Amino acid sequence: MSATSSVFEWRLRVYWEDTDAGGVVFYANYLKFFERARTEWLRSHGHNQQALREATGAIFMVTDTAVRYLAPARLDDELAATVRVTEQTRVTMRLHQQAFRLAADGSRVLLAEGDIRIACVDANTLKPRRIPIDVPIDAPLK
Amino acid sequence: MSATSSVFEWRLRVYWEDTDAGGVVFYANYLKFFERARTEWLRSHGHNQQALREATGAIFMVTDTAVRYLAPARLDDELAATVRVTEQTRVTMRLHQQAFRLAADGSRVLLAEGDIRIACVDANTLKPRRIPIDVPIDAPLK
Amino acid sequence: MSATSSVFEWRLRVYWEDTDAGGVVFYANYLKFFERARTEWLRSHGHNQQALREATGAIFMVTDTAVRYLAPARLDDELAATVRVTEQTRVTMRLHQQAFRLAADGSRVLLAEGDIRIACVDANTLKPRRIPIDVPIDAPLK
Amino acid sequence: MSATSSVFEWRLRVYWEDTDAGGVVFYANYLKFFERARTEWLRSHGHNQQALREATGAIFMVTDTAVRYLAPARLDDELAATVRVTEQTRVTMRLHQQAFRLAADGSRVLLAEGDIRIACVDANTLKPRRIPIDVPIDAPLK
Repeated sequence: MSATSSVFEWRLRVYWEDTDAGGVVFYANYLKFFERARTEWLRSHGHNQQALREATGAIFMVTDTAVRYLAPARLDDELAATVRVTEQTRVTMRLHQQAFRLAADGSRVLLAEGDIRIACVDANTLKPRRIPIDVPIDAPLK
Repeated sequence: MSATSSVFEWRLRVYWEDTDAGGVVFYANYLKFFERARTEWLRSHGHNQQALREATGAIFMVTDTAVRYLAPARLDDELAATVRVTEQTRVTMRLHQQAFRLAADGSRVLLAEGDIRIACVDANTLKPRRIPIDVPIDAPLK
Repeated sequence: MSATSSVFEWRLRVYWEDTDAGGVVFYANYLKFFERARTEWLRSHGHNQQALREATGAIFMVTDTAVRYLAPARLDDELAATVRVTEQTRVTMRLHQQAFRLAADGSRVLLAEGDIRIACVDANTLKPRRIPIDVPIDAPLK
Repeated sequence: MSATSSVFEWRLRVYWEDTDAGGVVFYANYLKFFERARTEWLRSHGHNQQALREATGAIFMVTDTAVRYLAPARLDDELAATVRVTEQTRVTMRLHQQAFRLAADGSRVLLAEGDIRIACVDANTLKPRRIPIDVPIDAPLK
């Protein structure tokens, strides 16, 4: 199986709310874009986080984010945010995520990329717990 | 022509970024949802705000927002935000906007609704100027 | 008692996060500034919302916001946001709030003003309930 | 000179806008808290970014953020965000930043910490350029 086959991608648009006075997308908002992509990646595999919380009491909590910002995006740009699982334990996941600008000619410019680590925790105690769903990955379970 | 025919609608999803510690969508974020719907409504008529700014120097600035919050939305809810022009002058527009939660059975719950007034201004001086595009409306031009 | 004596004021600063690609504060963020001022107004009277929730199960929920945006603010501007109660019932409050830019010469420019209506609700059911604290007001209790 | 002497600290409060449906501060918002602290650190040394931009055309752009999230903060918590320069070139700076919760008894809990790299760029072209101010650091200029 090729690496490409396991990359999930979510399209999104840059709105006024995403920009700052530099005229470009505020860097912290890429964390939101990556989060939306992760949420839709889970949904694409049949997992709804609100339903999961109500059924099991589990939520995912972000524990580490390392992001490089390479090129700016502007109002009305169309972006694609990707998700690829790079590591998984019984309690945590590490994902590599990228955000691209989609040009009219079909080319892509890499805007930001990073590694996001997530832990499954109990919604009330915030204590770590086993991930209660099967997460689709390529990486071997540790 | 019926009133319904002139209502534009944009679908969106509630993500973690939209919620607050009350467990529901933070009220100020409905202004973002309404803004996204207005942006997509303009796009649906061929108008891209970034391109418009580069071509004419004009941007739209919000001058008044009056919103009632009626019911909560939660993580993973699917929403629809609507746009209907209720008044237009050469420089301003007033729009009525609603946000609905879409239930699995196809029913809709009205979450928030409001009136948003927008003025066309010069991007550099922020002084009012004539709207440089034809905005699709039902309401008579004043 | 003069009207002025009952106006609470909170100072804040404009950061990158508050601005948009128009080079000014994104209009929806005035709702955040007003919220901060209300929170600090309650705190100035000894009320901490998190402690209130834990002790009584009550939270305040915003039900209506009507705001006019009059002048822009930019990065690094110093602002003052005010709070004045204009109406109170056993379950709701209506507040008039203003945001000013503070110039170096001590003068003030009104940037935005609005009326915010808040209801006390149960944090779990979101059903209306009696406000469990004495809120300092001038307006007569209805 | 001790390491402590070169750490700048900025106090801030957790508001509704900062929280998410997990009941805690949304992780992406620590980037905002760190940004506020950097802005105030520059101001404490006499540098106003808006004035700097108007005078020189230079702005600071974030190029890398690596943050670990260690403990949650809740509504009404008082936080302190710190800034310490760890590396500087003619065009870039690297800063180590921490966010603490301040307990009533004076103790501190580390909530998040990270390294933020910033580059000076021209506001119009977004091309790298020399930092036009003296930034107060301990680290040797490379």
